[in-house]
Amino acid sequence: MGSGIIEFKVRTSQREEFVDITPLVQQAVTQKGVDSGICHIFVPHTTCGITINENADPDVVTDLSETLDKLAPAEGGYRHKEGNAPAHVKASLVGSSESIFIEGGRLCLGTWQGIFLCEFDGPRQRKVWVKVIDD
Amino acid sequence: MGSGIIEFKVRTSQREEFVDITPLVQQAVTQKGVDSGICHIFVPHTTCGITINENADPDVVTDLSETLDKLAPAEGGYRHKEGNAPAHVKASLVGSSESIFIEGGRLCLGTWQGIFLCEFDGPRQRKVWVKVIDD
Amino acid sequence: MGSGIIEFKVRTSQREEFVDITPLVQQAVTQKGVDSGICHIFVPHTTCGITINENADPDVVTDLSETLDKLAPAEGGYRHKEGNAPAHVKASLVGSSESIFIEGGRLCLGTWQGIFLCEFDGPRQRKVWVKVIDD
Repeated sequence: MGSGIIEFKVRTSQREEFVDITPLVQQAVTQKGVDSGICHIFVPHTTCGITINENADPDVVTDLSETLDKLAPAEGGYRHKEGNAPAHVKASLVGSSESIFIEGGRLCLGTWQGIFLCEFDGPRQRKVWVKVIDD
Repeated sequence: MGSGIIEFKVRTSQREEFVDITPLVQQAVTQKGVDSGICHIFVPHTTCGITINENADPDVVTDLSETLDKLAPAEGGYRHKEGNAPAHVKASLVGSSESIFIEGGRLCLGTWQGIFLCEFDGPRQRKVWVKVIDD
Repeated sequence: MGSGIIEFKVRTSQREEFVDITPLVQQAVTQKGVDSGICHIFVPHTTCGITINENADPDVVTDLSETLDKLAPAEGGYRHKEGNAPAHVKASLVGSSESIFIEGGRLCLGTWQGIFLCEFDGPRQRKVWVKVIDD
């Protein structure tokens, strides 16, 4: 990766798992020393994604995971034969990026918001890319 | 919020409601006086979201709302016990941000596109944050 | 469109079709001559969208298409009476934009990632807008 992108790695431990990466993203923002701007986050994978949701009660993302399972169940008669077709579908539904404002060097998030890496085909080591735009 | 972010508030009046916020976003862009750039929109909530869709026929977003209800019905055996689990799920599916180009001081949208705040757990007062990047 | 936005057109040939537009987006980035920055992509339509997913095995996006069909089937008792209500729903689920990092003048994508225009109401000619932010 070029000098402008910060990369960090996340090791997931289950087939499906939502990992709160807010502290890691904040660390990247702090490292860049940007006071006011936008933090763009991107995962270079096709069977995991990024979402923002409540990180106070872990049941919230479990509900999200279970609802996505109903839409794209493990056994669904898929064409893609690697056994991870539902993971690809879920990745497109949550999306592979997020953009969050920065003020005073801090990510601007709502009281209950956290940033989650959504693992849909783990366990694996995943990469997260962060780019900070100064304004 | 820092000086770079414009915040406006939206009062919703129903449990589930899609509010066309295009005029409010345009107003924020006009206030910034940026001719060419990008307008980033973010909602700091976990039970509402932002989407872009047709704003000519209100039935379009009603169909969206009803389809999301089938995927995440009110009674769905959720773990999160505050009664708004489906609202959290829907928020992640539509997402909490949008990015729209600006040219000539105007939001660049297609003929039929409008920007909607998607209320999934109203009625409430919601905050919308806008940041305009000049290029 | 203003001078800052590059527009290209995509002709789709089926009702529902996922077109890999990665080469066209890279061409727009190359045309701008930006070494390091962010490429924002936006479709000004309400019945098509943009997603990032695997472009090695075409079955992956077919699975995505078929899963979205289960959620928003052709015959679903919709209110919007133009026959394309499910296309509107699907457009909001995949979203109308993506943001991808640029380093060394190249789009930074994972090994398996491609950028897809998601046609949900074709065949039509679609517009794709690209804006490149230099950092």
